[in-house]
Amino acid sequence: MTRSPVLLVHGGAWDIPADLLDAHEQGVFDALQEGWKLLESGGTALDAVQAAVTVLEDDPAFDAGRGSFLTRDSRVQLDALIMDGATLRAGGVACVERLRNPIQAARLVLDESSHVYFVGQGAEEFAQAHGLPLIDNAELVLDRERRRLAEAQARENAGTPDNTFSGRPPAEPPDSHDTVGAVALDQHGRLAAATSTGGTLNKDPGRVGDSSLIGCGCYADNASAAVSLTGWGEPIMKLVLGKWSTDRVLGGGSPEQVAPDAMAYLFRRLGGHGGIILLSPDGRYGMAHNTPRMAWGVHTADGPRTGTKL
Amino acid sequence: MTRSPVLLVHGGAWDIPADLLDAHEQGVFDALQEGWKLLESGGTALDAVQAAVTVLEDDPAFDAGRGSFLTRDSRVQLDALIMDGATLRAGGVACVERLRNPIQAARLVLDESSHVYFVGQGAEEFAQAHGLPLIDNAELVLDRERRRLAEAQARENAGTPDNTFSGRPPAEPPDSHDTVGAVALDQHGRLAAATSTGGTLNKDPGRVGDSSLIGCGCYADNASAAVSLTGWGEPIMKLVLGKWSTDRVLGGGSPEQVAPDAMAYLFRRLGGHGGIILLSPDGRYGMAHNTPRMAWGVHTADGPRTGTKL
Repeated sequence: MTRSPVLLVHGGAWDIPADLLDAHEQGVFDALQEGWKLLESGGTALDAVQAAVTVLEDDPAFDAGRGSFLTRDSRVQLDALIMDGATLRAGGVACVERLRNPIQAARLVLDESSHVYFVGQGAEEFAQAHGLPLIDNAELVLDRERRRLAEAQARENAGTPDNTFSGRPPAEPPDSHDTVGAVALDQHGRLAAATSTGGTLNKDPGRVGDSSLIGCGCYADNASAAVSLTGWGEPIMKLVLGKWSTDRVLGGGSPEQVAPDAMAYLFRRLGGHGGIILLSPDGRYGMAHNTPRMAWGVHTADGPRTGTKL
Repeated sequence: MTRSPVLLVHGGAWDIPADLLDAHEQGVFDALQEGWKLLESGGTALDAVQAAVTVLEDDPAFDAGRGSFLTRDSRVQLDALIMDGATLRAGGVACVERLRNPIQAARLVLDESSHVYFVGQGAEEFAQAHGLPLIDNAELVLDRERRRLAEAQARENAGTPDNTFSGRPPAEPPDSHDTVGAVALDQHGRLAAATSTGGTLNKDPGRVGDSSLIGCGCYADNASAAVSLTGWGEPIMKLVLGKWSTDRVLGGGSPEQVAPDAMAYLFRRLGGHGGIILLSPDGRYGMAHNTPRMAWGVHTADGPRTGTKL
């Protein structure tokens, strides 16, 4: 039986400023186009989420790939995970500094390794051994981000540190979460999910958030659902919120209802903020965020839809 | 209300050879003694699991801390996670090479960082900045492990690679999984869990398994249960089996039944092998393994019990 494909993408949940709305909406639209091309012609969900996330990594509007936030010591460190819901095969990389597209390295781990997860230099060496070029970290760094880091560190030195990720509820809405992700259902009924991030602004070197952690920021299982999350990483990790969400679908919840339930649970238990896209094997889907905005896109046989707020 | 404390430890699930049984049983006994001393005198579950795992890391019989398996390029790379079920605070480190006790670094992440998870050099620098000495990797390497690696690589070169972790069910029982872990309930009714590992023999540098991944090899939530797993890491990760197990307890399952259920699920879905210790807030506990043996220990007010097979 051939199914009607579905592709969902997000470009991060936060308080996107008015002057960046167009760039964010264009970015998720472009990602939908690339992923949908594959799904439409019978391609796999796995290839579609990889293609969509590659577009978002390449787009400097988002905190993934080139243009990501900088660490405390002015480097870009990237994390990504991709998962095939049909087989439960997964591949992830974290804290890589010399790869342009960490989602492609993650896919190589999924396809070519007996392991699931590689970090740091070992991850870079694995990717290089399987054909990805290593680049200089400076190629991933934008002047915009150097300025943003300097401003954040000036605020910190002035005694007003950004507590967004501290585990304490922030006094104000989180500053910026441009993590990107995609979930897809293909004509063969297979689910897949992918998430990629540059992490948090001014993060300590070596910090890894929820995005590349299996069951946290990304998960896919044809027995339940596919999910990608964005937002305040540490609370999402503590609740293993991706797995929580897909398990709710397994238990009979509709993705439409489970997505906002997940955000409510995140806030109720830990005061967390974020966003979610969630897709079940029957093609039903849900999206939600408890931040002011989230860049989102959905493509079905009826065409693409995008927005920056649900 | 004061509760009667409970402490469970494991020293890995695999086919422990006859000549190593005594060393393994002594090791889990020693870990119980250290952890129980704290629990008995009103200490926290978090301190108890840290103390127990520190003993197991220091014991060269186990694949954690000094004496761990070597990577393909003859280094020790260590992963650990600790989690406080009362607050959901967690701290983890992965792929660290210069720390004698990764569980102590993980505890520092839990206590001192706004983040949850650090990997590689950034994790080592965080630990050093918070008072842990960095050591030379060679201090963690035993001659025994150099010989074991040479033998594994000779087998690999002879065309009989160890597929233990390949995602394909092994032709024979897995070679060796000496990951260590502990779960505890203290007098105040707080749960905690900790897991530490040197990973797999002859692993690719940078590979991270289930042990330090939140919800996979370790999890604790006073609303459900505390768990530590050991075994074939990749299948455990793909099923997010720690969270799966604690959720079953939340759903009304008894730890006694959920522990073997988790092993059955691991094998049924992915052909995986491993072991589990699981403890609920009411002090009930379960242990199981589907490997030939698992070093285990339990301490209650009735005293300590240990074994190498359930």
